[in-house]
Amino acid sequence: MTYKSVKGTADILPSGLAGSSELYQAIEAISRNIFQRFNYREIRTPVIEERSLFVKAIGAETDIVTKEMFSFRDRGEREIVLRPEGTAPIVRAYLEANFHKQDAFQKFYYIGPMFRAERPQAGRMRQFHQIGAEAIGSMAPEIDAEIIVLMANLLDAMKIKGYKIRINNLGCKDDKAGLSKTLRGALAKEKSVLCDDCKKRLEINPLRVLDCKNESCRSVIRGAFKSVKFLCNKCDGHFKKVLGCLDSLGIKYELDPYIVRGLDYYTQTVFEVTHPELGSQDALGAGGRYDNLISDMGGPQLGAAGFALGVERILIVAAKQGATVYPDDKSVIYIAAMGQSAKEKAFELINSLRGIEWGKKASFDTDYEDKSLKAQMREADKLGAKFVLIIGDDEISKGEAVLRDMATKEQIAVKFSDIINALKGKLC
Amino acid sequence: MTYKSVKGTADILPSGLAGSSELYQAIEAISRNIFQRFNYREIRTPVIEERSLFVKAIGAETDIVTKEMFSFRDRGEREIVLRPEGTAPIVRAYLEANFHKQDAFQKFYYIGPMFRAERPQAGRMRQFHQIGAEAIGSMAPEIDAEIIVLMANLLDAMKIKGYKIRINNLGCKDDKAGLSKTLRGALAKEKSVLCDDCKKRLEINPLRVLDCKNESCRSVIRGAFKSVKFLCNKCDGHFKKVLGCLDSLGIKYELDPYIVRGLDYYTQTVFEVTHPELGSQDALGAGGRYDNLISDMGGPQLGAAGFALGVERILIVAAKQGATVYPDDKSVIYIAAMGQSAKEKAFELINSLRGIEWGKKASFDTDYEDKSLKAQMREADKLGAKFVLIIGDDEISKGEAVLRDMATKEQIAVKFSDIINALKGKLC
Repeated sequence: MTYKSVKGTADILPSGLAGSSELYQAIEAISRNIFQRFNYREIRTPVIEERSLFVKAIGAETDIVTKEMFSFRDRGEREIVLRPEGTAPIVRAYLEANFHKQDAFQKFYYIGPMFRAERPQAGRMRQFHQIGAEAIGSMAPEIDAEIIVLMANLLDAMKIKGYKIRINNLGCKDDKAGLSKTLRGALAKEKSVLCDDCKKRLEINPLRVLDCKNESCRSVIRGAFKSVKFLCNKCDGHFKKVLGCLDSLGIKYELDPYIVRGLDYYTQTVFEVTHPELGSQDALGAGGRYDNLISDMGGPQLGAAGFALGVERILIVAAKQGATVYPDDKSVIYIAAMGQSAKEKAFELINSLRGIEWGKKASFDTDYEDKSLKAQMREADKLGAKFVLIIGDDEISKGEAVLRDMATKEQIAVKFSDIINALKGKLC
Repeated sequence: MTYKSVKGTADILPSGLAGSSELYQAIEAISRNIFQRFNYREIRTPVIEERSLFVKAIGAETDIVTKEMFSFRDRGEREIVLRPEGTAPIVRAYLEANFHKQDAFQKFYYIGPMFRAERPQAGRMRQFHQIGAEAIGSMAPEIDAEIIVLMANLLDAMKIKGYKIRINNLGCKDDKAGLSKTLRGALAKEKSVLCDDCKKRLEINPLRVLDCKNESCRSVIRGAFKSVKFLCNKCDGHFKKVLGCLDSLGIKYELDPYIVRGLDYYTQTVFEVTHPELGSQDALGAGGRYDNLISDMGGPQLGAAGFALGVERILIVAAKQGATVYPDDKSVIYIAAMGQSAKEKAFELINSLRGIEWGKKASFDTDYEDKSLKAQMREADKLGAKFVLIIGDDEISKGEAVLRDMATKEQIAVKFSDIINALKGKLC
């Protein structure tokens, strides 16, 4: 009997390859640095939430809620789910912690796993990872722009080149309802050429038809959409301000009137960031404003905006653009020891080296398996060791080790008491 | 209708308080640094696993498996659980990635959430977080010692003072079976004074009786245990070597013959690290050797050892020992702007400042809400800003900003074009 990971999940293993834990670490460290510059602070919500939270926030008829949530009952018979996205839990946490009663304006970021019970395919795992931000408590158009600028800064810092930002404005609740009504009327006339999914969408939420990739649906949409002028003056002004802010910073974007996003909570500005390297599932991330979600969830009327980036999607692009974008700058020092006394010395020495503050990132390792010197040198090589300390019976009797520079192959004898200083010269 | 987090889970919010996201970040950064020194590499296994994995690894009759797992069926009708611990998934990942067929010796660390459907109480959450390590592929006693030294190094680096390491040796599989048999015999004679739980344990796994906190059970155990000499010569030699390694490094520990751990996979060295500040749930962490788990799970016969520390437990102790152990060294720079032109200038300026590499950690923020200057200065104060740039209509016309040092209250005028250099002098 062997055991496998659950379908649609994957281990993130250490190694230099794409998808390795070092790449996740690098992407996270870069993100934390950028978030800190923008003064966004980390929030970590639990992996499990009550199902009702997402039904309310994302919408009862959305694909996520109807088909894609990992759902189970706990002993108290409540319906629990593995969180499918980060915004609803953060709004829940914001209200539960009563931020709206004190410092209503809060800027959060999050990094962590999300879950969807979809059929796994390239770039769509059942456990995937998102990096996102939410600015809660402001209606200012500068916030819409800041969220987009922040997302672009993250991608730039991760050295992702060639992404495209596409922006739309859905307007306020009333504008959205008006658009929905207009679309329902226009599309109903051409219902016969719509795909089966769109026929259903037309009944439940006509805006979702805009998401359809089917060419015959798209041509109907293009026709129906041309005549629609649905933004009220206030929303139109808001959107112009957002675009003006982006222009002032030289952020490149395209306007795309078909972006609606698959979650019901969005109002006003919505956006997607896509990459041509990703094929048909081309979104690196997405986001927008959600000015009614906080009040819908029992809180006050507060504006908010956010985005989420998919880490696995970022890694696919990073791998295609060359996997060396996140270099590992760690120095490895290996102690090769032969014989009982040398082994004991190595054990002490490795542990005192590990306890010192070094100027550069350094790892220290040795062998406990009584391998031959040759095998130990091979091991040091495999670890990418920059320096090897060699200790045998001879060295023990002389109270010294041989320090070998693996690049130049130069070897010098160093007294045990001088080893730390000798390495400090090389690592600090 | 308001929404709450699931019972036994908690949001980790940003702020300076114990349990805040900054403390988790600090503990994780410290841990990564120490793991890197010891040359342990990160592995991230999924949050969900098949239930059968833990039934096999931890033991079908253990509390974790019988009572404490969050379990549900996926659409394929397999039983899925939220992982209750980290060792079994890592061994599963090790075998699934075929490490045993190439570089059998691997040293991993992990940081992440674990789940137990227990009744929540102080220091026992349903979603909690562990930091742990697993060294797989070695029988060397130096590895048992290294794992303990690594754990102690982590706690020292986190500035946790006053923890106690308690060590035992369960011996090999045969020794463990022998002890189990001896105990069953000895305890059966005094069954009447054992608690109900221990009566059951006596049938299923007599070793678990050693875990009982009930005083009448403990006195029976002490009596029964005195006469037991169960370690074979090889295991006795292994244990002496482990203790010798710890002694050579000056690691303090106590021998405790009653430690068995609640998971069936342990053999040989087992240990717990406890702290008196924690009360009755006093374990900060625990670990040990598990030389049969890899073969039990369908792999080859390979030695292994590991430990896990509980992050929430560490934070309880850190809070009691003074929550300032993880200082935030970030500088905040705030732009206070009055008037439309100044706001626009502030938006541009804040975004160019955010894009620069600074010598020290720095955050940049401004106001988009048309607050009064007084309200903006209050906001800057609340954020702990070290410097505030003040821009109004006057400054715009002069092409400069007022740079205020919030500590000294000194104010100087700085040309817009000199702002970056002026701040560089202060932040680099």
